[in-house]
Amino acid sequence: MTIKPSDILRKKRFGGELNEAEVRAFVKGATDGSWADYQLSALLMAIAIHGMTDRETLSLTLAMAKSGDALDLSDIPGVKADKHSTGGVGDTTSLILVPLAAACGLRVAKMSGRGLGFTGGTLDKLESIPGWRADLSNEEMLAQLEDVGAVICAAGSGLAPADKRLYALRDVTGTVEAIPLIASSIMSKKIAEGTGALVLDVKVGSGAFMKDRDQATELARTMVELGTDAGVHTVALLTDMSVPLGLTAGNALEVRESVEVLAGGGPADVVELTLALAREMLAGAGKDDIDPADALTDGRAMDAWRAMISAQGGDPDAELPRAAETQQVTADADGVLTRLDAFQVGVAAWRLGAGRARKEDPVQAGAGVEWHARPGDAVQVGQPLLTLHTDTPDRFDRALEALDGAWQIAPDHTAYTSSALIVDRIAAP
Amino acid sequence: MTIKPSDILRKKRFGGELNEAEVRAFVKGATDGSWADYQLSALLMAIAIHGMTDRETLSLTLAMAKSGDALDLSDIPGVKADKHSTGGVGDTTSLILVPLAAACGLRVAKMSGRGLGFTGGTLDKLESIPGWRADLSNEEMLAQLEDVGAVICAAGSGLAPADKRLYALRDVTGTVEAIPLIASSIMSKKIAEGTGALVLDVKVGSGAFMKDRDQATELARTMVELGTDAGVHTVALLTDMSVPLGLTAGNALEVRESVEVLAGGGPADVVELTLALAREMLAGAGKDDIDPADALTDGRAMDAWRAMISAQGGDPDAELPRAAETQQVTADADGVLTRLDAFQVGVAAWRLGAGRARKEDPVQAGAGVEWHARPGDAVQVGQPLLTLHTDTPDRFDRALEALDGAWQIAPDHTAYTSSALIVDRIAAP
Repeated sequence: MTIKPSDILRKKRFGGELNEAEVRAFVKGATDGSWADYQLSALLMAIAIHGMTDRETLSLTLAMAKSGDALDLSDIPGVKADKHSTGGVGDTTSLILVPLAAACGLRVAKMSGRGLGFTGGTLDKLESIPGWRADLSNEEMLAQLEDVGAVICAAGSGLAPADKRLYALRDVTGTVEAIPLIASSIMSKKIAEGTGALVLDVKVGSGAFMKDRDQATELARTMVELGTDAGVHTVALLTDMSVPLGLTAGNALEVRESVEVLAGGGPADVVELTLALAREMLAGAGKDDIDPADALTDGRAMDAWRAMISAQGGDPDAELPRAAETQQVTADADGVLTRLDAFQVGVAAWRLGAGRARKEDPVQAGAGVEWHARPGDAVQVGQPLLTLHTDTPDRFDRALEALDGAWQIAPDHTAYTSSALIVDRIAAP
Repeated sequence: MTIKPSDILRKKRFGGELNEAEVRAFVKGATDGSWADYQLSALLMAIAIHGMTDRETLSLTLAMAKSGDALDLSDIPGVKADKHSTGGVGDTTSLILVPLAAACGLRVAKMSGRGLGFTGGTLDKLESIPGWRADLSNEEMLAQLEDVGAVICAAGSGLAPADKRLYALRDVTGTVEAIPLIASSIMSKKIAEGTGALVLDVKVGSGAFMKDRDQATELARTMVELGTDAGVHTVALLTDMSVPLGLTAGNALEVRESVEVLAGGGPADVVELTLALAREMLAGAGKDDIDPADALTDGRAMDAWRAMISAQGGDPDAELPRAAETQQVTADADGVLTRLDAFQVGVAAWRLGAGRARKEDPVQAGAGVEWHARPGDAVQVGQPLLTLHTDTPDRFDRALEALDGAWQIAPDHTAYTSSALIVDRIAAP
């Protein structure tokens, strides 16, 4: 018997707990179109206000995971691992981690999206590599996973199809930030993919989706529980995103930085975070005896990167695009950089052309922001602090506006308190 | 500057109070179509969950009242009065009250609707009179109001146009019962009509929309405040609807009963309630020296009825339709009728054909339920207790099912407690 949408809506309106059949009816309605947008959006609002119990969130996640095509990775030998980041500014870790994990013997097929808003999208970054293509057929993806062990590609639309419709509605009804909805959206896709070991990078701070530590912890805890309940070994790291990661935000800029790390160099914070995520992945796959740092120093990670890029049509030796114009911002005092705001840097990179406002907008491969000092570094008056890159120099002014007050220089180190990059680790009890 | 729907939605999602500009933006969006259904329904859900402050409800009501055509009754001499009932089973009072008030010197133009659900619609009842028509142009309505003093007609679609769209969405999203939404829907139309004195019959009990006294009181209080703030003299009576009103529920059946009251007879409870409502109307219009009971006994109310029906093409002398088939239910014991459930009687009348399930369904003029005893009356085994009327005798079974357990006969009066018909009176402080 069909459960009437209005009965489900009424139940949730009054804060009731939806049972599995009711949640399945809702997901079915979102998938097959039998629920109208106005019914879905009313339910999303009720969920955003009342929240969901752990049991409801699990039902929702599993129903969404089952609503579309599941990937069958069982023929691929080895442990299939995956990683998800809630998004941050200058976050290059996916680009490095996927080939690094493959170099350590795992198989990683990371389905990714294009960026919308001030945090960049992994596909946008890789598309700055001449020839590289994001769209693979399932067969191509599986073949590459077996041959190379590393794939980063666009998510097929058949995976958790209800999710796309629900996300679009949340976006226009003020219900994006709702933990059960975020957690089920992310985890349903990871479960449908058939991942065995999953590491989550849940970012917290001005440049993250979650500004508040309690909220970020709650999101991480919810996702770890969902993964564990669905039989996926899942661990979350709570990581700081009040300062942007690394030294660049932008598409080609971040690819260049990633290649530096894969070559054994690169910014220390990027290396630290990538290795921590890789160790969690390896531990989850029962391979804690492997040290991923070795694969960075001995060139195996770089080999995997080159194979991964080549397999998708990209030329790993090609010159990366550079923006037509740059502008420098210099330090206005001697002292110590005590603050560099991730959100403001992200917005500036976005305004310079690295990101898009609407999903049909193009992005500039070369646009973005480089910073030449990180909080804690000594700076001298007149030294370059930031370099802005864009093909459209009329954007410099709006980018500079976004950066107004984004950093602070104090006379000495006493005004600077360093903060941990990895704030917490959340695993199943 | 336009306020973004998603910002208004987010504010209400977190329980914030919408200001006047935000409420106006929402009503404008509902009226001109610039808000999508999914945005309206998400906001309606947030309002249903968080409620609205008195100030928000007033902004909403006034914005809706101003959203369409306002009727200009200022050229019509005399005080314009109106009445609204939240709907009950066997509620004939509008049919009697409108001509009665006109006979007492008031001008009453009651815009009404067709019934949906188990409480009948005033227009459906009057349409059982051969020739009578509900649809009047504004000019016809104003001319009749001036000549006869009494009009009951269909509400024009131009009055508070946002209301229709919002009601349709509430109906399919489980957000019908939400006091600020109900109150603003009713009161916006009364305010747009230009009524001077308004009496509200807020029913409470199984056969009413509001089953719970606290909720009914809150609805009455909200509407009285809204009316008062908008300059309409408004009083509400809280009246019992656990027992159906009068002795009949159905279209022609109720018209017949109304004519009995207009002729000076009829069931005592109908007379009591109609006179109480009429006294409130007259007091609101500054005419508390007039006793409406006189107009029932001396024939003036009947004259006004006949003039009202004739003016709209009806023949007040025509035989009213009768259902093709009847079936009697007899008492199964000697004793006292202690209970007769309004909801169950209403559902039975509806199933017999007096009401409709979808708004495009026709109704049967003759269908309905008559009861031959009211709670407190002595009954004898075998005496007729109920008569069911329908043109489609295959409906008897489902009507009898609805009536299962609807009444109770106790051996004597000790098991019977009479309850007041008029439970409370709510006026502006």
